[in-house]
Amino acid sequence: MLVSLLTDFGTADYFVGAMKGAILSVNEDARIVDITHEITPHDVHEGAWTLLAAYQTFPARTIHVAVVDPSVGSSRRPILITSGNYFFVGPDNGLFSYVIERESVCRVFHLTNDKYFRHPVSAVFHGRDLFAPVAGALLNGVEPAELGELITDYKRFPSLALHKSVDGSLEARIMHIDRFGNCITNITPSDLPFDFLQRGARLLIKEHEVHSFRRFYAENSNIEETNPNALFAVWGSAGFLEIAASCRSAAHLLGIERGERVTLVSRMI
Amino acid sequence: MLVSLLTDFGTADYFVGAMKGAILSVNEDARIVDITHEITPHDVHEGAWTLLAAYQTFPARTIHVAVVDPSVGSSRRPILITSGNYFFVGPDNGLFSYVIERESVCRVFHLTNDKYFRHPVSAVFHGRDLFAPVAGALLNGVEPAELGELITDYKRFPSLALHKSVDGSLEARIMHIDRFGNCITNITPSDLPFDFLQRGARLLIKEHEVHSFRRFYAENSNIEETNPNALFAVWGSAGFLEIAASCRSAAHLLGIERGERVTLVSRMI
Amino acid sequence: MLVSLLTDFGTADYFVGAMKGAILSVNEDARIVDITHEITPHDVHEGAWTLLAAYQTFPARTIHVAVVDPSVGSSRRPILITSGNYFFVGPDNGLFSYVIERESVCRVFHLTNDKYFRHPVSAVFHGRDLFAPVAGALLNGVEPAELGELITDYKRFPSLALHKSVDGSLEARIMHIDRFGNCITNITPSDLPFDFLQRGARLLIKEHEVHSFRRFYAENSNIEETNPNALFAVWGSAGFLEIAASCRSAAHLLGIERGERVTLVSRMI
Repeated sequence: MLVSLLTDFGTADYFVGAMKGAILSVNEDARIVDITHEITPHDVHEGAWTLLAAYQTFPARTIHVAVVDPSVGSSRRPILITSGNYFFVGPDNGLFSYVIERESVCRVFHLTNDKYFRHPVSAVFHGRDLFAPVAGALLNGVEPAELGELITDYKRFPSLALHKSVDGSLEARIMHIDRFGNCITNITPSDLPFDFLQRGARLLIKEHEVHSFRRFYAENSNIEETNPNALFAVWGSAGFLEIAASCRSAAHLLGIERGERVTLVSRMI
Repeated sequence: MLVSLLTDFGTADYFVGAMKGAILSVNEDARIVDITHEITPHDVHEGAWTLLAAYQTFPARTIHVAVVDPSVGSSRRPILITSGNYFFVGPDNGLFSYVIERESVCRVFHLTNDKYFRHPVSAVFHGRDLFAPVAGALLNGVEPAELGELITDYKRFPSLALHKSVDGSLEARIMHIDRFGNCITNITPSDLPFDFLQRGARLLIKEHEVHSFRRFYAENSNIEETNPNALFAVWGSAGFLEIAASCRSAAHLLGIERGERVTLVSRMI
Repeated sequence: MLVSLLTDFGTADYFVGAMKGAILSVNEDARIVDITHEITPHDVHEGAWTLLAAYQTFPARTIHVAVVDPSVGSSRRPILITSGNYFFVGPDNGLFSYVIERESVCRVFHLTNDKYFRHPVSAVFHGRDLFAPVAGALLNGVEPAELGELITDYKRFPSLALHKSVDGSLEARIMHIDRFGNCITNITPSDLPFDFLQRGARLLIKEHEVHSFRRFYAENSNIEETNPNALFAVWGSAGFLEIAASCRSAAHLLGIERGERVTLVSRMI
């Protein structure tokens, strides 16, 4: 079994190494894979989105440990989530909202059995002293019910699903801006009519209007060369519509940050 | 068998985690090692050079997956290269030029058998949906010829080899600037006469002249302390001549970027 | 057995990949875990501190390879340290000072047996050509005494232990500033009287005075909201007292860098 890690710890400190050491100290055969450690510090929403984008590529039974945890040490609960396919371990602060939304049949356990923690438990580093050894315990075959009690009042963010306005337009938002400056929305294929291109669908974002759709970033790039700043929409690899600009940062061209509102409008036919 | 990864994906997004998950979903025993994910976005030449510098340290039969792929989704072909020693998987855009130049007996396959792809194949993320599962298939023992057809018209960059000018000088260039600011050229030991020191060999770069040669960075550092900006040349660990400055960034002192021209001159004797 | 890596190589170059390849070329079953590669270039003290903070979370017999090595190629010696619990491999420049201070019964070997090096040995990359293959040799079961000769005159930094001033105050310093801007001192619980809170203990740093102590970062955060810049002290996860600010960078608020002096004063009772 595999353990994936997603945190806001960065890679310059000893935090990630310490988490891995702590897992391996419980189960020396653990196979650990990094998703990322570069979540913006304390940004639980960004962590939730990035976990959503990555987790399903892993084999069934992977243990996903995610730690973006500004309230570490407080009364926020440490939790374990089991779905039919995966385990998720981390803080109860909304970080797992989007995977719970996608996974069917989730059970959530409040991790209370400190027999499986690393002692003494630092009040400021549950990643090392609580979540890592619990992942190790799961690798060792410990049953979830042995680790804590079922709860149902775990924290969840509002759904990613869009609501249609009276005029048929959709209000979406930029969920993530990636390394290349692509701006990823929460719009999925099911939000768009199958004939959205014929309906002249377009995206409004700040004072910009994006009406060009591409299948991949470099499509029509000779056209684009005549207008190097041209923005376009493309279906991104996480299953959401992105605003992009070929070999340039769309976020920079738009002058936006994560969270910016996007309106999708298309003609009624 | 091992899989190495080299990309321009950065480590802040979910891309690298998704690639690893996709490999492990095909072969859960895959052992994956990162070379780097910090290639300058879309910089295929930098990727080609970095792969050259690292690949030979890995055990024979390692599968090197490299993805710097600004034209993903277009008609550029996905390829597999087999040499006597290694496998290389990635886009046909020149990224493997320098390893092909060094490895003898390379066969190149156009990856066409979508039975071994991850479906649906995103037009914007072949790293996850095409190159990763093909690496997994190789780990599972699938034969290269089963994955696609042999081709010979794959893309290659101009050779790294230097040409001697009529006056005996060599025109080289800065291939890479590393974290420490060392400026790595494409000059190899075989480009220099064995007695280059006696011949007063020196490097001309912009308005600067570098005529000091060292065996390692800290050599003569007490001399250097009297002239803290002193630049020197040293044989770098990738087998190329570097311009360096002890505990300082030579690139900063020179005010140069990758691609800058370097002229090597030495006296005829 | 595991190998951990800690270097100042960054992750943008081929250095880390080359080190891993070199280890795996000696022992293909090596399991390699990164602590960090983002030590400030050439900053041996920062490397020493970070290694101290992480190494004990790893299972017994882990081989910790650490390379922050501005004098690579010079007469500084390559060493192997064995304690009852771990192996440490790297340059003899003080990098292992703090782990030697903590580990009992350390033996130190000057690595001289070039049979276990990677040839030709680059004078500028002992990480790849000397420390990595020596780690591989240890994985293969080679005895430390086979790798070199015992030495006792290895280099050590001054102790981390604090000295008490005549007036009872303690002079400490900032050893590390982490990703979140927390400023970690070299003050340990044993440096403070058990009733330090009742004694009105406070930290003086530059023109600032820190007199608030918390158990975790988010404690009393509603109080803090009325004074968003409030600094506080907290026991950090590496076992040292930190100066922090909830969800803000204490280093930025203090305007300090690593190395800054901190004075701890408390009332005599």
